[in-house]
Amino acid sequence: MGKRINNGWRNKLYTIIYEADTPLGKLFDVLLLVLIVVSVIFVMVESIRGLPPYLYEWLYYGEWVITIFFTFEYIARIITVKKPSIYIFSFYGIIDFLSTIPLYLSFILVGSNVLLAVRALRLLRVFRILKITRYIGEANKLTKALKDSRPKILVFLFAVLIIAIISGTLMYLVEGEESGFVSIPVSVYWCIVTLTTVGFGDIAPITPLGQFIAAIIMIMGYGIIAVPTGIVSAEYVKSTKPKDVNDPDYVHLNTQLCRNCGAKKHRDDADYCHRCGNHLHPEDIINT
Amino acid sequence: MGKRINNGWRNKLYTIIYEADTPLGKLFDVLLLVLIVVSVIFVMVESIRGLPPYLYEWLYYGEWVITIFFTFEYIARIITVKKPSIYIFSFYGIIDFLSTIPLYLSFILVGSNVLLAVRALRLLRVFRILKITRYIGEANKLTKALKDSRPKILVFLFAVLIIAIISGTLMYLVEGEESGFVSIPVSVYWCIVTLTTVGFGDIAPITPLGQFIAAIIMIMGYGIIAVPTGIVSAEYVKSTKPKDVNDPDYVHLNTQLCRNCGAKKHRDDADYCHRCGNHLHPEDIINT
Amino acid sequence: MGKRINNGWRNKLYTIIYEADTPLGKLFDVLLLVLIVVSVIFVMVESIRGLPPYLYEWLYYGEWVITIFFTFEYIARIITVKKPSIYIFSFYGIIDFLSTIPLYLSFILVGSNVLLAVRALRLLRVFRILKITRYIGEANKLTKALKDSRPKILVFLFAVLIIAIISGTLMYLVEGEESGFVSIPVSVYWCIVTLTTVGFGDIAPITPLGQFIAAIIMIMGYGIIAVPTGIVSAEYVKSTKPKDVNDPDYVHLNTQLCRNCGAKKHRDDADYCHRCGNHLHPEDIINT
Amino acid sequence: MGKRINNGWRNKLYTIIYEADTPLGKLFDVLLLVLIVVSVIFVMVESIRGLPPYLYEWLYYGEWVITIFFTFEYIARIITVKKPSIYIFSFYGIIDFLSTIPLYLSFILVGSNVLLAVRALRLLRVFRILKITRYIGEANKLTKALKDSRPKILVFLFAVLIIAIISGTLMYLVEGEESGFVSIPVSVYWCIVTLTTVGFGDIAPITPLGQFIAAIIMIMGYGIIAVPTGIVSAEYVKSTKPKDVNDPDYVHLNTQLCRNCGAKKHRDDADYCHRCGNHLHPEDIINT
Repeated sequence: MGKRINNGWRNKLYTIIYEADTPLGKLFDVLLLVLIVVSVIFVMVESIRGLPPYLYEWLYYGEWVITIFFTFEYIARIITVKKPSIYIFSFYGIIDFLSTIPLYLSFILVGSNVLLAVRALRLLRVFRILKITRYIGEANKLTKALKDSRPKILVFLFAVLIIAIISGTLMYLVEGEESGFVSIPVSVYWCIVTLTTVGFGDIAPITPLGQFIAAIIMIMGYGIIAVPTGIVSAEYVKSTKPKDVNDPDYVHLNTQLCRNCGAKKHRDDADYCHRCGNHLHPEDIINT
Repeated sequence: MGKRINNGWRNKLYTIIYEADTPLGKLFDVLLLVLIVVSVIFVMVESIRGLPPYLYEWLYYGEWVITIFFTFEYIARIITVKKPSIYIFSFYGIIDFLSTIPLYLSFILVGSNVLLAVRALRLLRVFRILKITRYIGEANKLTKALKDSRPKILVFLFAVLIIAIISGTLMYLVEGEESGFVSIPVSVYWCIVTLTTVGFGDIAPITPLGQFIAAIIMIMGYGIIAVPTGIVSAEYVKSTKPKDVNDPDYVHLNTQLCRNCGAKKHRDDADYCHRCGNHLHPEDIINT
Repeated sequence: MGKRINNGWRNKLYTIIYEADTPLGKLFDVLLLVLIVVSVIFVMVESIRGLPPYLYEWLYYGEWVITIFFTFEYIARIITVKKPSIYIFSFYGIIDFLSTIPLYLSFILVGSNVLLAVRALRLLRVFRILKITRYIGEANKLTKALKDSRPKILVFLFAVLIIAIISGTLMYLVEGEESGFVSIPVSVYWCIVTLTTVGFGDIAPITPLGQFIAAIIMIMGYGIIAVPTGIVSAEYVKSTKPKDVNDPDYVHLNTQLCRNCGAKKHRDDADYCHRCGNHLHPEDIINT
Repeated sequence: MGKRINNGWRNKLYTIIYEADTPLGKLFDVLLLVLIVVSVIFVMVESIRGLPPYLYEWLYYGEWVITIFFTFEYIARIITVKKPSIYIFSFYGIIDFLSTIPLYLSFILVGSNVLLAVRALRLLRVFRILKITRYIGEANKLTKALKDSRPKILVFLFAVLIIAIISGTLMYLVEGEESGFVSIPVSVYWCIVTLTTVGFGDIAPITPLGQFIAAIIMIMGYGIIAVPTGIVSAEYVKSTKPKDVNDPDYVHLNTQLCRNCGAKKHRDDADYCHRCGNHLHPEDIINT
């Protein structure tokens, strides 16, 4: 009996936390969203030096509030779900856990560097937003589009990598250290910076030959940047076109009306109505 | 009587200001366009230091001429339109107002900084150009295309933001302050600079690990820049292709064969052969 | 008589210079192409400082050879063409003239600066290559594709310009002079550099607010770079569609009407109605 | 007899090295892949200065192991293949040879510079990976897509080059040496850097006019970067869509033959020959 009641509030809690159909569920998601965004902003601001000290204090208290909320949420998720183990070891389960513990860890751990990294863990909370965006149809479409064209893009980026390695080595041999191409990995890094048209300029060729090769690399990058785009476009065009008219099993239907049975839409070359078999005389044709 | 005349010149004025069909209307639009461009150039030139003083004087007088014209135009728009309130509080109404007052404000307000911002307001006049470009069909098409793919792009940019936050934090932890990654917001800013392939180079990774992560971020950015493009392309291709299968003017034709005349390819819902009018009994159906 | 002979060699010369069907014509084009490329390389190399002096001498002699050849070519083009005036004042005619005279001008003109500009004129010869590439079908296709999508792209770039002006002014107000945003034109220039994802980094925001706005500008640029691409893609997809007509399995159907059975849409080369077998007399053709 | 045995192990070896269907073949490919990646990493790490000396030693021994393996592989490939000469002088044959000899050459050759280049040869091993990726269908698709749109892209990049040369010269004349535009080739290099939206910033315009021209160049680059993308997209869309029958003015023509006049290609729904008017009985249909 008590158990059933127990199940009662548990199910209610479940619908609130895991579903967004009930007003309470929606409210919960919105609240969660706000808290995530706030906490992310907190972590970011916290990392800025030279702010008034009281601000850091406020951030600290704010962090406590958020952490406690997330702690309760985490526990609630575990007790309400049928198979806790599945949730706990799911991607989002781990995210929830890792993004909740940092404050607690900060008591155990010592060493500012470690602590810094631990604090940063809280930023994993942004991933939670994805959990909420599952209601946005577009998101799913996009992820699908990406998944569909992932193998192609991977193969492509792999090719880019090979180009980067070869031309990076070439630049290393041509430019040498005085231009900043201190080692092959560094000049491969430079090649990637160039091929992707990012171009920081922290490293740049000085020698004429180096600049010539660089120009070729850029034009190459310029030419090949088109490929992944083209792939995704095509992929996307396909995905938005479930049936296509290519196969000759599709014919145009006119707007003629059969005078006998009133059946609309006959193929242009129909002599008889496909519905009642009445002959369609030219004068029968009632253009609607 | 006087009222009607009044209405007469009012309507005439209306057609001149709000329409572009009459030669006077066209002339007005062209004049407006020229004045907008001139005034925008004026504001820009004005902000340049170290020009000969008499030039600033000329700009000042020129600004007076333009302001007076825009003032009259603004008043004319109000008195000619049926419901002034609608125009006044419309987007363009506000733009017109804000871009007209600066010179007048410059007498009331004091403090060069405020004044600077106020002067800049005049640049809002460029938006007026959009009002005139409403005649260009392309513009409407483009805005439509953008509107159609806006949700998708927003979702996508949102994903980009999450990537930027996570990898920005990572870079902050890896690179630290000596490389210019002084805080998480700054390195998120750097990540956006990198993901969008802008790459200023004011901040650039120095440590090997940092450069390695940067390379990954770039290649990611390189791979995902394809997605919004693909989306818009697809969106645009669709928009330029009215006929698709969802269009009810296309039906699927089965491969049934009419036993009477041997006509192939009837629509799935056909009871009679469209060629010979023979009734298509289920047993008639010869699946080929 | 002599006139006819005259016409004889003139026509021969014409076919050699203006056409590429005869072996001599091909040879001429190839020779021209080589000379153009060589002369362009000469001009470029000439501008490099600190090369051994004898090299500059060689370049000078080489330039003489090329100039003489181009002079003869120019004269030949004039005397062989039917209406010289048309050629002389055509785009290519002017290009040919301007890119031939520099050496002669260098005797008349004085002042190294003017001379520098005059010398640079020779680089206009690269445009001649386009004249030869007229045989490449792709080139024409591309130019067509560009022409088709030009209005759209112009409208789009115009929108980009407005964005650049507004956000440029914003950055000017936010960042001020110490960050390098010394005037509105300069920060508009910076905005264009950023929106186009070029990102030199010679000017970069320093203040947090400035970096925030910059990030928004970049993400905007990232989002909108998709639009022109999408446009061209769509344009190009369209332009590649008519080719499908060449597919022998598809024929164009005219809008003729068979007077006997009223059957519409016969293939252009049909003598008899495909429906009723009635002969399609020319006078039968009822263009609808 | 011995010969046949010989052929026996030779064929077995052949299937292992050249095919990937047998488990041993797969294992061989995987092992090869791992060794290639490892050796590439080795070469890269080796080029980094200031690592602990023992590491360089290890890399040296590691290189020996890899070289010996590749040597045996190379010999095996030669003795197992039917026509060794074909393999030896094939692209991959040369790659295999060049990427195997460096260590041996390092004994013969002297002079660190030459040696550096020779060592770098080992990076050619990355190309071997392509040999293994031949199993990935995507890769072939991509290369096909690239090949199809290569002519177009080449023509396009050629146009880009012309733009770069002209605007580069313009910038050279406008900006002059103090801005870093020391020669025409250098400013052409800068133009390519800018047009491809890489934008290192090592060279950047200072004068207002220079910045104005630069802005135009960028916007041009921004507008034309769309073209190759559009091309590839279209190419790719086409490749995924052989025919287009959206246009209702096109009908499919079957391969039937009119027994009377021998006219081929009637529309699927034709009762009478469009050429001679002969009735097409079902039994008339001669499927060709």
